[in-house]
Amino acid sequence: MNYKNLDELNAFTELKSLKDSVILKNEMAGENGAKRVKEFTVPMSGTLSYNYAAKAVDEKIVDTLQKLADEAELTDKFAALYNGEIMNPGENRRVLHQLTRGQLGNDVVIDGVNKREFYLSEQKKIADFANKVHAGEIVNEKGEKFTTAVQIGIGGSDLGPRAMYLSLENWAKKNGFFKMEARFISNVDPDDATGVLNGIDVEHSIFILVSKSGTTLETLTNESFVKDALKKAGLNPSKHMIAVTSETSPLAKSSDYLTAFFMDDFIGGRYSSTSSVGGAILSLAFGPEIFARFLNGAAEEDKLSKNKDVRKNPAMLDALIGVYERNVLGMGTTAVLPYSQALSRFPAHLQQLDMESNGKSVNRFGAPVSYVTGPVIFGEPGTNGQHSFYQLLHQGTDIIPLQFIGFKKNQTENDVIIENSTSQAKLCANVTAQIMAFACGKDDENPNKYFEGNRPSSLIVGECLTPEALGAILAHFENKVMFQGFIWNLNSFDQEGVQLGKVLAKKVLAGNTDGALKAYAELFGI
Amino acid sequence: MNYKNLDELNAFTELKSLKDSVILKNEMAGENGAKRVKEFTVPMSGTLSYNYAAKAVDEKIVDTLQKLADEAELTDKFAALYNGEIMNPGENRRVLHQLTRGQLGNDVVIDGVNKREFYLSEQKKIADFANKVHAGEIVNEKGEKFTTAVQIGIGGSDLGPRAMYLSLENWAKKNGFFKMEARFISNVDPDDATGVLNGIDVEHSIFILVSKSGTTLETLTNESFVKDALKKAGLNPSKHMIAVTSETSPLAKSSDYLTAFFMDDFIGGRYSSTSSVGGAILSLAFGPEIFARFLNGAAEEDKLSKNKDVRKNPAMLDALIGVYERNVLGMGTTAVLPYSQALSRFPAHLQQLDMESNGKSVNRFGAPVSYVTGPVIFGEPGTNGQHSFYQLLHQGTDIIPLQFIGFKKNQTENDVIIENSTSQAKLCANVTAQIMAFACGKDDENPNKYFEGNRPSSLIVGECLTPEALGAILAHFENKVMFQGFIWNLNSFDQEGVQLGKVLAKKVLAGNTDGALKAYAELFGI
Repeated sequence: MNYKNLDELNAFTELKSLKDSVILKNEMAGENGAKRVKEFTVPMSGTLSYNYAAKAVDEKIVDTLQKLADEAELTDKFAALYNGEIMNPGENRRVLHQLTRGQLGNDVVIDGVNKREFYLSEQKKIADFANKVHAGEIVNEKGEKFTTAVQIGIGGSDLGPRAMYLSLENWAKKNGFFKMEARFISNVDPDDATGVLNGIDVEHSIFILVSKSGTTLETLTNESFVKDALKKAGLNPSKHMIAVTSETSPLAKSSDYLTAFFMDDFIGGRYSSTSSVGGAILSLAFGPEIFARFLNGAAEEDKLSKNKDVRKNPAMLDALIGVYERNVLGMGTTAVLPYSQALSRFPAHLQQLDMESNGKSVNRFGAPVSYVTGPVIFGEPGTNGQHSFYQLLHQGTDIIPLQFIGFKKNQTENDVIIENSTSQAKLCANVTAQIMAFACGKDDENPNKYFEGNRPSSLIVGECLTPEALGAILAHFENKVMFQGFIWNLNSFDQEGVQLGKVLAKKVLAGNTDGALKAYAELFGI
Repeated sequence: MNYKNLDELNAFTELKSLKDSVILKNEMAGENGAKRVKEFTVPMSGTLSYNYAAKAVDEKIVDTLQKLADEAELTDKFAALYNGEIMNPGENRRVLHQLTRGQLGNDVVIDGVNKREFYLSEQKKIADFANKVHAGEIVNEKGEKFTTAVQIGIGGSDLGPRAMYLSLENWAKKNGFFKMEARFISNVDPDDATGVLNGIDVEHSIFILVSKSGTTLETLTNESFVKDALKKAGLNPSKHMIAVTSETSPLAKSSDYLTAFFMDDFIGGRYSSTSSVGGAILSLAFGPEIFARFLNGAAEEDKLSKNKDVRKNPAMLDALIGVYERNVLGMGTTAVLPYSQALSRFPAHLQQLDMESNGKSVNRFGAPVSYVTGPVIFGEPGTNGQHSFYQLLHQGTDIIPLQFIGFKKNQTENDVIIENSTSQAKLCANVTAQIMAFACGKDDENPNKYFEGNRPSSLIVGECLTPEALGAILAHFENKVMFQGFIWNLNSFDQEGVQLGKVLAKKVLAGNTDGALKAYAELFGI
């Protein structure tokens, strides 16, 4: 396989020559626009599709993106990844999160262990445990059922599982799958744990300590915080806690926990929602069947990412268009705008997924790259954002590419008709309207009311946000980020940039500082 | 007064000549760095201060920023604003949110009404109402006390009040000021209202309908949604609802509400947290005294913004450094990083405040500007963000200026000692460490572990996040955004960019569409 920098690829030179060859507002006008909406679409799994009509591309640009995909051997690299090659060279690790939800290629056997079977067996162990909790076979010290599950974790052990829980909470309540409330403690700020503990019934809560290494400072600190609270309430912490960790971690065989579930070094934190990290809390909250449906959605979407044809591989096309916008058109930020309140924390998860994976300045061999890489990702649900930061998106001086997500039906099927339309119809009308307002703009004599247009967006649209749809959307973005990492020739699976701060924080706590570090510490009285 | 574009100011030419004259990592090294931390600080109100040691500036650049402030007549324009001149020319309106919390200049009398007295009288009306609710004098139909207040609003009627509520919730619980739970319904997605209603005791809830115009589609839709739910529960909606609106709105004198509290056209939505919009929900949640303390904090901070000396005017200095970074150094995004879980939604509020105010491409006279204006704003609390998007902040290809916020003490005073330090000490050690890691970086033979440094940040630091501190921090950012708008010669107080989408959404709902708009609507089955 060839690992070349983006600016060494011939197709990239060709792509640059096509800069500004498509004027979006012209393309989207009149019946040609309608034709684009119908044709510039790639089926995703289930009822989902990826629509790129409102991107500033045409068949010629997409053909060139295909050449770029071929020259960069994107699907070959994906195959290498799911077949278990070392695709995280900095840490000398494999990258196996797709195996937690399916089998795309060869068996991956390490030290005699078939990794797919290992991930499946952990999923099965979690399912058994969750079923026993729900059935009242695993109970608190008084023999009473647990009613709340609290995840203690940070970063990938928090954002993804939290976003997924919120995405399905109302759906599960509506459809009879809601088993337990879930809560999350993440920040080392002691007010985070205090606030969560104040809001729950501790006696009937089960805590899930999540740390792959078993050494994450914030998580261990919050564990002690929670244990203190349990003891003060006259409870035995070891009867209220389980661990999700790696088999080699100090937490793995500790009697401090009712039981432990495992992942391994081949599951990056930000890619761990489909592993035990998401599995324990989601299986407890909604039941193992719902977690399995979520995995199935992700697995189906993963299969599409194997396709060499960019017009049949939505994650790869999304990735390539993003590179065109970032490296040819010079756009530095991407907004994620889900028109679904259930996805309220999904942008925060994508922010980690994308920025931690591709916010790098050296390629996979450690050589500095001479082009920009991962963009800033931010977003809030629509229609809320429309009454907030959309002003800048419409009329600001920078153009921000947009990723809309919307569904025909809401999750709870609860709705009301006002002025002849349901709330859900209003929500959908607003996505539609925004895409066109951004693309085509509006002339106006009053320059304050003039809209330039030419602001590109894509749309993921589906029937309803079900567990399968959520899994598919998650996998779409994971694979998009992976493909972009391949195009930029990065290692998307390490995160050395988070280390320096940890080292310096330890020095501060040890009082081992001088200069400005000491002066700042004095501002805080430490 | 002179209203000139930024690129017409002599001081801006001078400022551009100083580009890259300061190498941050050199300045912050050794004892010089410690000296900067002690000297590059501006007192804010109360115990707060604004520290800009880790910004890439020196005395010469700050002197030039002073010239820019003088030439752009920044404090004169602020005086014009608080003295009631028409500072929102596009809508021919005054801008009076500072009057909701103090009196900085002349009386502003409109149609015989002293506006300061008007805002005070509404604050007083709200205080009386809240006191009666807390005392059980205003009760539900069964004569029982209300226990929950639910705000129905969107944009500025939601983000600011929600962020302020979350900022003080744990503090109020700790200090005996917690009166009622608050919840918020904003999105037209019907699952938002359904989720909130499922989680509260409707019979003991009082709903606050917030819409200045009384015509906001999302808010009226959610009002109907809530009224339906109340009726289904056998309750009389008019006994459970109050309105916050303008005196001229259709909601003002309706018998649908227990009472109404007023703001007016001179309070922009995103600047309305200190008006009745924030006043009703915060007074109900924490009591009127706490809301008054919050206002006092904002008023004290406003006074500092009158100072012509940039070294004594933290909001103005913050604004000017931001313009230097945006228009001279070419940085397009700013991250807001509060090391306090209580400020979890504060970045989302600032995102609206800043991006809706200054995301504009034409100046206050409607002429296109030839420089970049408002940046993208995003952020999450630390230490959470450290385990997420900080990778890109440390090692990505773009430099993102950072705004840290931190406090010596946590709000609940609940803490635990692990490995010889409290959680709060760990939190503070992490802010300190991050600032220095971003500024100075680290050499390493392994290019993956190399940190370039030179990533600028500022720090707002204080004793504890009290109501006064929160008010001061809010006012700091409101005034920063205002000063930046003056520097860019924008009207920061209109938001024409949100109109086009509304118009198109109505067309979709009316079925009055063709071309791509129709094709998109068909994707959603509408």
